[in-house]
Amino acid sequence: MNSKTINIGLFGFGTVGKGLYDVLQKIKPENVNIVKVCVRNVPKHQAEAPELEFTDQADDIFSDPRVNFIVELIDDAEAAYAIVKRALQAQLPVVSGNKKMLARHINEMITLQRQNHTALLYDASACGSIPVIRNLEEYYDNDLLISVKGILNGSSNFILSKIFNEGMNYAQALELAQKLGFAESDPTLDIGGWDSLFKLIIISIHAFGVYVQPEEIFNFGIGNMNEHDIQFAHEKQRRIKLVGWSEKVDDDKLILSVMPHLLSKQKYIYSVEDEFNGVVIKGLFYYKQFMFGQGAGGFPTGSAVLSDITAQLYDYRYQYKKLDAAHPLKFSNDYFVRIYYRYDSPATLNLLDFTTIHESYYSDSYKYVVGDVSLSQLHAQAQKLRESDVFIALYPQD
Amino acid sequence: MNSKTINIGLFGFGTVGKGLYDVLQKIKPENVNIVKVCVRNVPKHQAEAPELEFTDQADDIFSDPRVNFIVELIDDAEAAYAIVKRALQAQLPVVSGNKKMLARHINEMITLQRQNHTALLYDASACGSIPVIRNLEEYYDNDLLISVKGILNGSSNFILSKIFNEGMNYAQALELAQKLGFAESDPTLDIGGWDSLFKLIIISIHAFGVYVQPEEIFNFGIGNMNEHDIQFAHEKQRRIKLVGWSEKVDDDKLILSVMPHLLSKQKYIYSVEDEFNGVVIKGLFYYKQFMFGQGAGGFPTGSAVLSDITAQLYDYRYQYKKLDAAHPLKFSNDYFVRIYYRYDSPATLNLLDFTTIHESYYSDSYKYVVGDVSLSQLHAQAQKLRESDVFIALYPQD
Repeated sequence: MNSKTINIGLFGFGTVGKGLYDVLQKIKPENVNIVKVCVRNVPKHQAEAPELEFTDQADDIFSDPRVNFIVELIDDAEAAYAIVKRALQAQLPVVSGNKKMLARHINEMITLQRQNHTALLYDASACGSIPVIRNLEEYYDNDLLISVKGILNGSSNFILSKIFNEGMNYAQALELAQKLGFAESDPTLDIGGWDSLFKLIIISIHAFGVYVQPEEIFNFGIGNMNEHDIQFAHEKQRRIKLVGWSEKVDDDKLILSVMPHLLSKQKYIYSVEDEFNGVVIKGLFYYKQFMFGQGAGGFPTGSAVLSDITAQLYDYRYQYKKLDAAHPLKFSNDYFVRIYYRYDSPATLNLLDFTTIHESYYSDSYKYVVGDVSLSQLHAQAQKLRESDVFIALYPQD
Repeated sequence: MNSKTINIGLFGFGTVGKGLYDVLQKIKPENVNIVKVCVRNVPKHQAEAPELEFTDQADDIFSDPRVNFIVELIDDAEAAYAIVKRALQAQLPVVSGNKKMLARHINEMITLQRQNHTALLYDASACGSIPVIRNLEEYYDNDLLISVKGILNGSSNFILSKIFNEGMNYAQALELAQKLGFAESDPTLDIGGWDSLFKLIIISIHAFGVYVQPEEIFNFGIGNMNEHDIQFAHEKQRRIKLVGWSEKVDDDKLILSVMPHLLSKQKYIYSVEDEFNGVVIKGLFYYKQFMFGQGAGGFPTGSAVLSDITAQLYDYRYQYKKLDAAHPLKFSNDYFVRIYYRYDSPATLNLLDFTTIHESYYSDSYKYVVGDVSLSQLHAQAQKLRESDVFIALYPQD
């Protein structure tokens, strides 16, 4: 198997694509080459890597007889879908970095892999340099998993760290993140929690064998956070982190959500700062495992993509074993959580129907409650909440 | 491949062997069974698991036609060597938990695996529930690794935590560790750093492709630590942890050591407490990865052993790719480190030849220096240092 040579047709030459190229330039593996790169702006990228062959036509990649492997690292989810589908149908192994596309089309992609006996790998897309999918697929395969919880987006975490620890404002922090190559071309995907949500959906398939459409899951980002929320966190000696959370809360019930959490120092992910990602996997036998590593930046993500690529040298494929479980878990929003809720008027307070209020504060400039509310309530009002001047953060009791 | 059934001949029914059995009882996999167990004391273990078949004869396992898989979880390294060798020669796949045996005989075991086209797996033995070997073999395969550093022994870390954070004395902490099933039958292996050393040797093969005999490596445990050392650490706002450290310090030079480190809060492994293990992998592309999980106890280690076992369902084998590197690294002790050195007399001070002394304290009851000394010096004097009333801890400047 190790005598194979991987000849890559690459789509996209942004931070990750360029990162992959830079990593290959450094380690010069004998059996992995980039044969041709498809980009929108050929002259721009040709200048970045004069010795590479660029094209702006996907057909040039697929008709190149040398190409035996497709790597798709573009932002446009619909274009990514077409590329990956076409590659799998042509029985070419594929590595994809498009979380949005994967979260939307993963069922079809699993079918295509099985029909065409070819592999689609995407560990790099799920958690940057942390090999969470492979570890869930193989190593934690036998454990009875209870929860997977983590900081899944390096860009928003970087921004949160800068605001929280260094007193930057949002615009400064975002500018710095973009300058350092940690922010995607559309920051709303990061800040709004969508990127974390797509990753959580992918992880939950491998952890629990459950696929849930993005629309069914409550997602609330960090875009609405203001100085009062930060002060509240400091007063409670907690930090605000954007957390993807997947947990088996009952024999057959699985909850999923993405929202800010007010984390106490005892939590492993409390200390995950800057562009890092951190994932806590809780199982019946292992208690807790914590994996931590860089979640953004050219080298870490480029290198993670290369790990997905070279897995093909030993014919590695995801097995999706848990999807065939005899007693599958069911996704549900029927679960109560305790949240911190900053609101600006009686009308926004009434958006949510709290069963219990544990704490309440009211002044002209700042109002909040800490109370219990169901995920289904939050989910039903998600769009209105996002558009209002309110902030929500899970407020765990420990 | 998934239609295989694994019928285990098990050697040993201590904490880990019983843990494996308990895990199997909980998850009841269709394709993994324990067929027969070889132990020294049959009546004792028969009472623990009446429905299992026990024997005290190894031949009973090897001659049982049902057995197609050997799991070796015994303390005696020489007996473990005979069992694993016999199994590999009989082309039976094996999972071994004996670090001492592996660290001593790994080269022969690699040859036997290749000759007999069968697999020997031991992830569970290297870092408890953290799948460090597999991740090094596969995921970090392409990265240019710089260092692997970690708390590799749950038992000694548990004892250190109890002494350090809860003010227990050594005897109390050891008793509690043994009561909770965190200490091996011979605690000197844990306390003396030997267990960490064996694990470090195994890890270094997979991380750097370098095998080093235990005798060539400086190893100093925590057995000599006293209240002055603890106070020194507290004053410097550091914690003492027993750390296995493997680092590429030059283009072709690799250092290895096991000794206490005085760790500042900034270090990831500073926060690894109780029976947990934590490993930091540093690479050129990934910067730092941190993996953390339980390193002792029946369920975590039993479950980790089961992960090694079920890897056989998809014919997983370690590839040992780095052993065939074109430019192999060379192990060396020619490297200077800064240490805290508590000594009791001019004679013990003179055991080491410091090139620079950065800090010195002297009183009737407590004397120490902080200074630079070579690993080769430490290694040459290791036995004398262990037998004297001295304590050594790496004292990193950050």
